[in-house]
Amino acid sequence: MTEKRSAVVLGVGPEKGLGASLAKRFANEGLHVFIAGRSEDKLEQVARTLRLNGGSVTPVVADGSVEHDVIHLFESIEVNGYIVDIAACTVDSNISMPLLETEIETFTQLWTQNCLVGFLFGREAVKAMLKQHRGTLFFTGATASLRAKPPFTSFAAAKAGLRALAQGMAREFSPQGIHVVHVVIDGVIDGERARQHFPKFVEAKGKDGLLQREAIADSYWAVHCQHPSAWTHELDLRPYKEPF
Amino acid sequence: MTEKRSAVVLGVGPEKGLGASLAKRFANEGLHVFIAGRSEDKLEQVARTLRLNGGSVTPVVADGSVEHDVIHLFESIEVNGYIVDIAACTVDSNISMPLLETEIETFTQLWTQNCLVGFLFGREAVKAMLKQHRGTLFFTGATASLRAKPPFTSFAAAKAGLRALAQGMAREFSPQGIHVVHVVIDGVIDGERARQHFPKFVEAKGKDGLLQREAIADSYWAVHCQHPSAWTHELDLRPYKEPF
Amino acid sequence: MTEKRSAVVLGVGPEKGLGASLAKRFANEGLHVFIAGRSEDKLEQVARTLRLNGGSVTPVVADGSVEHDVIHLFESIEVNGYIVDIAACTVDSNISMPLLETEIETFTQLWTQNCLVGFLFGREAVKAMLKQHRGTLFFTGATASLRAKPPFTSFAAAKAGLRALAQGMAREFSPQGIHVVHVVIDGVIDGERARQHFPKFVEAKGKDGLLQREAIADSYWAVHCQHPSAWTHELDLRPYKEPF
Amino acid sequence: MTEKRSAVVLGVGPEKGLGASLAKRFANEGLHVFIAGRSEDKLEQVARTLRLNGGSVTPVVADGSVEHDVIHLFESIEVNGYIVDIAACTVDSNISMPLLETEIETFTQLWTQNCLVGFLFGREAVKAMLKQHRGTLFFTGATASLRAKPPFTSFAAAKAGLRALAQGMAREFSPQGIHVVHVVIDGVIDGERARQHFPKFVEAKGKDGLLQREAIADSYWAVHCQHPSAWTHELDLRPYKEPF
Repeated sequence: MTEKRSAVVLGVGPEKGLGASLAKRFANEGLHVFIAGRSEDKLEQVARTLRLNGGSVTPVVADGSVEHDVIHLFESIEVNGYIVDIAACTVDSNISMPLLETEIETFTQLWTQNCLVGFLFGREAVKAMLKQHRGTLFFTGATASLRAKPPFTSFAAAKAGLRALAQGMAREFSPQGIHVVHVVIDGVIDGERARQHFPKFVEAKGKDGLLQREAIADSYWAVHCQHPSAWTHELDLRPYKEPF
Repeated sequence: MTEKRSAVVLGVGPEKGLGASLAKRFANEGLHVFIAGRSEDKLEQVARTLRLNGGSVTPVVADGSVEHDVIHLFESIEVNGYIVDIAACTVDSNISMPLLETEIETFTQLWTQNCLVGFLFGREAVKAMLKQHRGTLFFTGATASLRAKPPFTSFAAAKAGLRALAQGMAREFSPQGIHVVHVVIDGVIDGERARQHFPKFVEAKGKDGLLQREAIADSYWAVHCQHPSAWTHELDLRPYKEPF
Repeated sequence: MTEKRSAVVLGVGPEKGLGASLAKRFANEGLHVFIAGRSEDKLEQVARTLRLNGGSVTPVVADGSVEHDVIHLFESIEVNGYIVDIAACTVDSNISMPLLETEIETFTQLWTQNCLVGFLFGREAVKAMLKQHRGTLFFTGATASLRAKPPFTSFAAAKAGLRALAQGMAREFSPQGIHVVHVVIDGVIDGERARQHFPKFVEAKGKDGLLQREAIADSYWAVHCQHPSAWTHELDLRPYKEPF
Repeated sequence: MTEKRSAVVLGVGPEKGLGASLAKRFANEGLHVFIAGRSEDKLEQVARTLRLNGGSVTPVVADGSVEHDVIHLFESIEVNGYIVDIAACTVDSNISMPLLETEIETFTQLWTQNCLVGFLFGREAVKAMLKQHRGTLFFTGATASLRAKPPFTSFAAAKAGLRALAQGMAREFSPQGIHVVHVVIDGVIDGERARQHFPKFVEAKGKDGLLQREAIADSYWAVHCQHPSAWTHELDLRPYKEPF
């Protein structure tokens, strides 16, 4: 009997978003893909496209900050007999705001979306992976994971927490065969979000001034394929002309 | 008319704790001290001792994770006509736990106690300090602020968030005259908590193997006294024989 | 006319060493490989093996710390009409020594071998690459690049210098199309050096407890293949069971 | 018999320079001060001023990069019966230069002045201090110690090496009672060098936009006075309005 291998991507939204592009790549590599996100419409659209490309996919409506949803997501995978080769958390919620105007709800929401989601998803992913003694768990970070700059202080506080979570999990679970990876996306991803919210910025950056989603997916895949004797825990991804 | 100058310390608990020792030092330097914490009994005991030493002190029962309490704390200071020279956040809540056994409540509570408290306290402190265009705001960090090691991953995720908050606030408010400081306590503080919870560890460490609270207070005071042309944002404090 | 594409690897010594393995991988990918090192015998042996595998290779005797040798190395490449796609500096010289016993010659030699070599090689590589507006320049770091621990303080001082060099070069030359990469090898490489000098350690570490050279080469190649919109500047490589 | 206590400052040049200001402060605190530098004229001038202020001082002509000079400096101290309470290395040599124009001599000289000097001075200082089982050893870093930015890449490579040296020495010698400190000067020091070389920059920065030398000396002294149960290894010093 062949293993039924899968990847699960949390944070799948618009078709032109990082989550969808990772899912597409994993599907192209022959994995069944569980795509999870809050919008059923968007998930269905991404699922349709993946299937047209020959991919095998299961959409699961889930809010990564709701424990029950995350547990249910991984139960669905197990119930269907799938092994989780890859679990990628791409949820990312950013708000630019002077600190004195930041309300407790905003500070809490940013932490919930960026860090608590990572905790719930990571914990459940590892539980699944430990059964098979292997698997790659990706957390998607940002420039702010390493440096807190106003007006992104609240976002940075959340992302720094996520980074520490990833680091602690790597130390705890690597020896058990789970590859925990923190990817620092140091720049703007070329996708629907950027093109809708700051089209002029996108235009000014020009070709390759924004991270191409397929290029990001290449590196996720390459890191997943690393031999356990030489695993990467953290890497940055940055457009060649991005100042840093 | 003379300015009524004060310090406010959040996280004052047992008399042999960091909060009380900072309050004592600030009182010795002639500042009126507002001490805040959750236990009225403990606050009263610390207040009595400070007064016996000639200090001027106001205890304020407050839970740093409750927005209303923190706002009320700073209102009490203002209503009484005090200027805030120093605001020190010393709340610190730590739990050692394997990640897979960590419940969402624990992960959230650690963040609430260590990071959200810092946000609320820091925000309100800066609002008060900006009126006078000066003041020193201290955040108390830990070894885990810089490195996430199991079984302290959840604690580290919270403390890393606090550190990013402090860094972002320093960048935002230093140019307006607010000195924001992040102190990395890299070791165990000699106090009631350590002596109660791990007495053997305390004994094994021996003299000066634990951070003396008065020694910590010395450095807080020295940093507060720094000239604005040469401010420290981050410093570590570590017993001389602590491995790092 | 087809471009004559090549890779150059500095620090090629024993056949079972990182330099030789990188060269082999680049040759397998179809690049002509210039291998450089101080021992003509070792270079010839590696060259023979590469050719037996179908590789195209030119050995160049060169001491990376001698400016004339490094300049001559890149002149040989240009004279032969080759474009440099990849330049990899793998020279690594380590000595364990208490600081008080460290002589100025030792401290200087470690810097010369680890940092000055990187400067000379990097500078000449960039000069060559700028003509073609592309190329990947690898610097090979170590655990000590990030943390100085006795008795490796002198080694760490040299490797930290190399890391800063790589970082500054990335900032200076990335916008001109040169991909500068710093690889932190956080563990012991399985090769002739380790097996000769500490065989018991090698045995104790067990399978995959040492970095497999082919696994390292995989990641170098993957990073070289990254799209310019999502380049990695720094990544760590570590055996899954290596504490960090 | 009273101990004859002293401080030694390496890198004393102009009267309005960091070295001289540190020496002045240590003299004011009652320590005999050995001031060392390459220019006899400048040393004599600083010595005269210190003596006019009531200080006790011995000038020693020494090039910190010449091993014999450094050894001789500490021999002079011992021969005169002095104990070294403080040893401060303030040598700092910076050059702004595009990497491709940087000659091997420049790269080497920057390392020699910034890093090798630190090694020689630090090693000899620790040898002296271990006899008395105490002492504070200061290394003076810069913004570039933490971040390599062109056109300061070569300077950064040297300063990063110095930082690693300091860190390794702290780990090796702290448990033996030697307090090793790395001070990151993140800004421009108000002194003769800045006022001569970039007077417009100095004017534009305005009051407190440059680090006041006396303010720096305050922090060196405060760190020296720290209790061994709570030592700082690294701190930054930065004008309040300096972006970072």
